[in-house]
Amino acid sequence: MIPVHQLKAFTKQVFLKIGFSDADADLATTVLVQADLRGVDSHGVARLAGYVRLYDHGRLNPAPEIRVVHETPSTAVVDGDRGVGLVVGPKAMQIAIEKARMAGTGWVAVRNSNHFGIAGYHAMLALEHDMIGLTMTNAAPLVAPTFSLDKMLGTNPIAVAVPALTQPPFVADFASTAVAYGKMEILQRKGQDAPLGWAQDAQGQTTTDANPIKNGGALLPLGSDREHGSHKGYGLGAIVDIFSGVLSGANYGPWVPPFATAGFMAAQEGVGAGTGHFFGAMRIDAFRTADDFKQHMDNWIGAFRNARAVEGKTVLIPGDPERAMEAERGANGLPLIEPVIQSLRELAERFELKWDSTQMTNGQ
Amino acid sequence: MIPVHQLKAFTKQVFLKIGFSDADADLATTVLVQADLRGVDSHGVARLAGYVRLYDHGRLNPAPEIRVVHETPSTAVVDGDRGVGLVVGPKAMQIAIEKARMAGTGWVAVRNSNHFGIAGYHAMLALEHDMIGLTMTNAAPLVAPTFSLDKMLGTNPIAVAVPALTQPPFVADFASTAVAYGKMEILQRKGQDAPLGWAQDAQGQTTTDANPIKNGGALLPLGSDREHGSHKGYGLGAIVDIFSGVLSGANYGPWVPPFATAGFMAAQEGVGAGTGHFFGAMRIDAFRTADDFKQHMDNWIGAFRNARAVEGKTVLIPGDPERAMEAERGANGLPLIEPVIQSLRELAERFELKWDSTQMTNGQ
Repeated sequence: MIPVHQLKAFTKQVFLKIGFSDADADLATTVLVQADLRGVDSHGVARLAGYVRLYDHGRLNPAPEIRVVHETPSTAVVDGDRGVGLVVGPKAMQIAIEKARMAGTGWVAVRNSNHFGIAGYHAMLALEHDMIGLTMTNAAPLVAPTFSLDKMLGTNPIAVAVPALTQPPFVADFASTAVAYGKMEILQRKGQDAPLGWAQDAQGQTTTDANPIKNGGALLPLGSDREHGSHKGYGLGAIVDIFSGVLSGANYGPWVPPFATAGFMAAQEGVGAGTGHFFGAMRIDAFRTADDFKQHMDNWIGAFRNARAVEGKTVLIPGDPERAMEAERGANGLPLIEPVIQSLRELAERFELKWDSTQMTNGQ
Repeated sequence: MIPVHQLKAFTKQVFLKIGFSDADADLATTVLVQADLRGVDSHGVARLAGYVRLYDHGRLNPAPEIRVVHETPSTAVVDGDRGVGLVVGPKAMQIAIEKARMAGTGWVAVRNSNHFGIAGYHAMLALEHDMIGLTMTNAAPLVAPTFSLDKMLGTNPIAVAVPALTQPPFVADFASTAVAYGKMEILQRKGQDAPLGWAQDAQGQTTTDANPIKNGGALLPLGSDREHGSHKGYGLGAIVDIFSGVLSGANYGPWVPPFATAGFMAAQEGVGAGTGHFFGAMRIDAFRTADDFKQHMDNWIGAFRNARAVEGKTVLIPGDPERAMEAERGANGLPLIEPVIQSLRELAERFELKWDSTQMTNGQ
């Protein structure tokens, strides 16, 4: 297990080494490691080397001038200036929160950004202000719309965070696909098959191939097939893409640039600037008093938590599993897998970081 | 086939007979028959007798005073005064549009309403103003959250309408369940089984029972089971419920009152007022010029329409099937099924309507 403070200190050093300001390095580190803490390992320090590769290829500006390029009382468009999404995201959410303070709600579309880590982090920033937070982002195309052979959408996640009174907040944070890509990667490493309904092959047939992209296939939208509502998952992913990409002036659909994976770094002809995000903040008391609302949220959460459950199971509230994981990992440290540790070792060597990279192994 | 104008004239007369104003009867008729036109038969005139039953039981106010009870520059809470959702909905959407005109976006939570017909109708009202429209509503509990035996959520639909330039608009309109309840009703009438993954039985196991509610079961969220992301469909339905019910002061979760089905009319202890809806309007030029945006939407739609398709299939844009149906039925009339015709005959007799109810049969 890697202690959280040790991983954070190391991660911050890497961001500083590629030119981040101290404040931005702190912020990017917090957002990135939050993914590991909440169990979304695919969006955490596993991506640190990828962000550095983005920088190496001139696609990440370590000192961006993040600015509002257009606004109304309740909206803004933000240009991320190729800054890291881990920093652009919280700053854009802050603008949404300020708008909501004045106008009741705030809605910010972002262009010229890249991967912003876990969507839930940004949505949860609204909670301490007694606001509902909403976040979405588009991403490089891995998903085939219903009946399509081509990959046209990213896993395009949505997160919504809602405050309660004595109960912990409601935090839904999910990809608009049958499964997050990180779960496919776990199967790939183990050499295991995927369940039918997660992916399709090059002919558009559902497949157990856990590496469908490599073989000309695609991930499937939430709903898996037409009979079980895949056109709804496709519609949801499309809404995320339009709000994040088309409203903001970012790329969208098949044009969203890939994250920094080897072989995908070539410059592309785009239809906009970088990756797009969309943030929303709604002040609770723009609708009813925050106390009233939060008491009813407690009642809502209590009712769902107490629903009769299938034998041996529990009815969970969105956010429960991630919160439990965060408590456990915050106390006991993060179980990084060997390929991630290796990538961190390489970063330590490259940047001549003082911390002995040999300590970065599990169980020591 | 029933000619559309004939069905509309009859429907309007029924609304007038139970005390609607002329304008409200027109509006309710337009919204209701739009569902039949777009192929969402379960939300059209099949429900006309149900609205009359709501009136009979004192749950529908034919002359409501629909009013804003709280507002900020970009938000409002509307009390529907037990008016029919078919009328409360468009009026609330109009308030959202007015808010968006001034503040960039408008967001209206509605309480004390009931069934508002098809969600897509209301969202599409934004299109002519170069705005994006968003609609959602909660509904009586038919859906079991992941691992729950209890029905805690309605089919809670979401609709989003986005304008394009030369292309028809993007209109996604879908329930947050694996299948709309109307499709189960079709199977019930035919005495056919449902595919696995649409519903669960009283023990929480997936079932082919097409009438699961009668037998202690429930509909399943979009995603069908945990392995295929049912917790995401549950999260989506929960978001719709919280925005529609908890923000507005309506009922929510298991407390949402049922539509007027026999045996469900008893007064309940509630946690709020009636059914809740949520409406949003976003002015496109609160983000970028409407022309720029709509050109990019044309490009988006064109790219998706031209994606390579599975043999014998076409990649559709959300809204395509409903638009095709509307053109066909607008020209050729509406194919009502016998039980619906019978319910309209009974209304004609009760209200002594002049139009000869014997004409209301298919193929005459």
